Amino acid sequence: MRSNILRLAAIILLGLTGAIHPSIAQQGGTVPVEYAAVADSILSRALLAGRAHPLLASLTGSVGARLSGSPAAAKAVEWARGVMQKEALDRVRLQPVTVPHWERGTVAEARILTTAPGESGRMRVLALGGSVATPAAGVTAEVVEVRSLKEAEALGDRGRGKIVFFNRPMDKTLPSTFDAYGGAVDQRVGGAVAAAKVGAVAVLVRSMTTATDTFPHTGTMHYDDGEPKIPAAAISTVDADRLSQLCATGRSTRVMLRMDPRTLPDAESANVIGELTGTDKPGEVIVIGGHLDSWDVGQGAHDDGAGVVQAIEALRLLKSLGLRPRRTIRAVLFMNEENGLRGATAYAKEAEGSAERHIAAIESDRGGFAPRGFDVDGDDAQVERIGSWAKLFERMGADRIRKGGSGADVGPLKAHGALTIGLIPESHRYFDYHHSANDTFDKVNERELELGAAAMALLAWVISEEGM
Amino acid sequence: MRSNILRLAAIILLGLTGAIHPSIAQQGGTVPVEYAAVADSILSRALLAGRAHPLLASLTGSVGARLSGSPAAAKAVEWARGVMQKEALDRVRLQPVTVPHWERGTVAEARILTTAPGESGRMRVLALGGSVATPAAGVTAEVVEVRSLKEAEALGDRGRGKIVFFNRPMDKTLPSTFDAYGGAVDQRVGGAVAAAKVGAVAVLVRSMTTATDTFPHTGTMHYDDGEPKIPAAAISTVDADRLSQLCATGRSTRVMLRMDPRTLPDAESANVIGELTGTDKPGEVIVIGGHLDSWDVGQGAHDDGAGVVQAIEALRLLKSLGLRPRRTIRAVLFMNEENGLRGATAYAKEAEGSAERHIAAIESDRGGFAPRGFDVDGDDAQVERIGSWAKLFERMGADRIRKGGSGADVGPLKAHGALTIGLIPESHRYFDYHHSANDTFDKVNERELELGAAAMALLAWVISEEGM
Repeated sequence: MRSNILRLAAIILLGLTGAIHPSIAQQGGTVPVEYAAVADSILSRALLAGRAHPLLASLTGSVGARLSGSPAAAKAVEWARGVMQKEALDRVRLQPVTVPHWERGTVAEARILTTAPGESGRMRVLALGGSVATPAAGVTAEVVEVRSLKEAEALGDRGRGKIVFFNRPMDKTLPSTFDAYGGAVDQRVGGAVAAAKVGAVAVLVRSMTTATDTFPHTGTMHYDDGEPKIPAAAISTVDADRLSQLCATGRSTRVMLRMDPRTLPDAESANVIGELTGTDKPGEVIVIGGHLDSWDVGQGAHDDGAGVVQAIEALRLLKSLGLRPRRTIRAVLFMNEENGLRGATAYAKEAEGSAERHIAAIESDRGGFAPRGFDVDGDDAQVERIGSWAKLFERMGADRIRKGGSGADVGPLKAHGALTIGLIPESHRYFDYHHSANDTFDKVNERELELGAAAMALLAWVISEEGM
Repeated sequence: MRSNILRLAAIILLGLTGAIHPSIAQQGGTVPVEYAAVADSILSRALLAGRAHPLLASLTGSVGARLSGSPAAAKAVEWARGVMQKEALDRVRLQPVTVPHWERGTVAEARILTTAPGESGRMRVLALGGSVATPAAGVTAEVVEVRSLKEAEALGDRGRGKIVFFNRPMDKTLPSTFDAYGGAVDQRVGGAVAAAKVGAVAVLVRSMTTATDTFPHTGTMHYDDGEPKIPAAAISTVDADRLSQLCATGRSTRVMLRMDPRTLPDAESANVIGELTGTDKPGEVIVIGGHLDSWDVGQGAHDDGAGVVQAIEALRLLKSLGLRPRRTIRAVLFMNEENGLRGATAYAKEAEGSAERHIAAIESDRGGFAPRGFDVDGDDAQVERIGSWAKLFERMGADRIRKGGSGADVGPLKAHGALTIGLIPESHRYFDYHHSANDTFDKVNERELELGAAAMALLAWVISEEGM
């Protein structure tokens, strides 16, 4: 801590107009007063002249959806490297990563065959990521509705030859939609294996969203080598409700599912990395990350274009304010979070073999909404330590520091000694967009996005000053 | 406080599934444990089966924009009475209110005449509420740009015959957009008077929004009897930036403004009132309010359809959970907040002459976004008292209790002894929509809206139990 010198420097160099928030300035002890000036200057700069929002416009507009292994993902890598170079970040580089390469194909059709005359049976459907194709003519079978993997496995012979329909909704009563997602997503991830065990021919999954609408939401799923690989797709919640009503009549409900995704050989891709190299202890590293890949529908604006541009913007903000960190603050744009986590694994492996010490890693992968705070994946003392800085984040509205999960990409760094942390934005709207054609740039509010970048910049700055 | 009995009743009657949040249940002292059960049941009910969102769909869809004195406002009064009656609220009634009646007319045209050849000079424009019309042929004059009322008045002779263009933007660096609005809106409200003083012929005002877009935002303005009434209109921020660039060239920039609003004789309208009459102390009243009128563009969804449906829904939630309050909780849907505050004045006047004691009044008039807490317009002890209940609001995300302004409609009740309180939602998106054609139902998120109603229901409930 370089108390008065830093504060003076901040006030003089950053051109502060004296607007140190009194409630922070009056604080003593655990919130050193010099950080209040830094917090105010980061906040003001972000809201007045932040670049996360125009960067996101550029990423979503010029690259768009960018699934691992796709030409668009390759374009995203070049886009990110170009931006980091343009911002003159230190040590901009690509870290090679070999990624899965799955393609959706061109056919996605799901039709209820047993509707009333004149009524359309068409359902809005997306293959789950990694799914095999149906035969060219499609799969036609009776639907059996279940609410859990266990219920599917308990079908026994009643599952044979059927399309198993997983329809347990996300629990809307949970205030955090991420908790609701966590409580329902096993159906999407594990449904195909559970259904295959009882001889089912395909799987339909209710989309993972709290909204009742017509967007199907894709996402990752897996197969077990010991079970047949059966096609798996998500249908919109409106269609799920309708299909469920038909199933509830007790009459046989038949559905035709036809889609042609395929898995290609692994492809070469990369994490994109740039940093502000530390002035005093460059070997101690704080990672700020998001993931560069997205699903292949929509524009990957909230998931996770937001995290990508916030990571870059956090560094740019510090740099533009003349704040050179004591320790290294590094933006890592991870490739392949969505369907493999290969980028995260590769980066953690490199960290393991490195002389560097990763002291903290902060991820933004919960959308570009108004930040509310941070979840800290550490012990009580660590949570308390970060929590002791909460007051600094109050004006940003991001002062809720809690024990909790961090993020998929930074998770593996925990084993290498990093305190892993997740930026937590307001979550209510997130799953309206997540993994769907609805995840587009216009759903992201400029101020909310910029504030998230500001909160990450500030937390990284304080850790870089204080150590961990 | 009816400690264990109430808690038992809550657990048995409300069908709680034992999901009392541990962090609340462990609290002692200022947060009685029985309220934790109530808070959880209100939260769950609101998120699972809240009716604020469908009510808002109905109000915006069947009534739409509803400026005081208009046929739509009359329809809104009937709509609100009908909903309250359907929900079987107690003592549903209309309180007569005489309101101003201003009409926008059918013409609104603003054109820059000195653009480059082939370039369109059209600006997106809305008459400010209460503005007089231009002559039928419009007003054509040179534009002079100012940043404040003071600057306008300092124009002296240079203002004569000009169109004064008020272009001080809202301060984007303020974390609360309401603070930014408060710092800029004097231009809209007082611009016409300041400009008339120096002989200007019309006023253009930069729209009150933090967004850079093409929506003009209307709003109230006033005239002084001692000054000529000159036409006043808002232009979009995109057009304001463009006009400012032209003015900055130093060349004469001429604009034609043409519009035909008019003020009609006052009209009869009403506040709409319904309540849950208190079981023990019916004469002690807690008001929950929003305003029923809106501007005449868009649908008045966030401003203040949200507050209207949240006030009704707060009562419906309590009633549906079998929670009969000890003191009276009353929903008051105020008429004419936007351009007169006549409903608020009438209600306060009635309160003054009544044997009832108004102990608190909570307003929702900051949009239907995720609630973050409450501003309490009271002394330190009162703020601290409400703040001592903050933990109850934590799961809703609405636990930030601060000293601050409440709301325009409940404001007058302060003089009659009520503690006035404002629901404070996330504010970043609010002025993207406020008073513009962009304030439509699709901008309101279901979960965020319902949570606001839940927070209001809970606060009203605790006050009704504890007194004030």
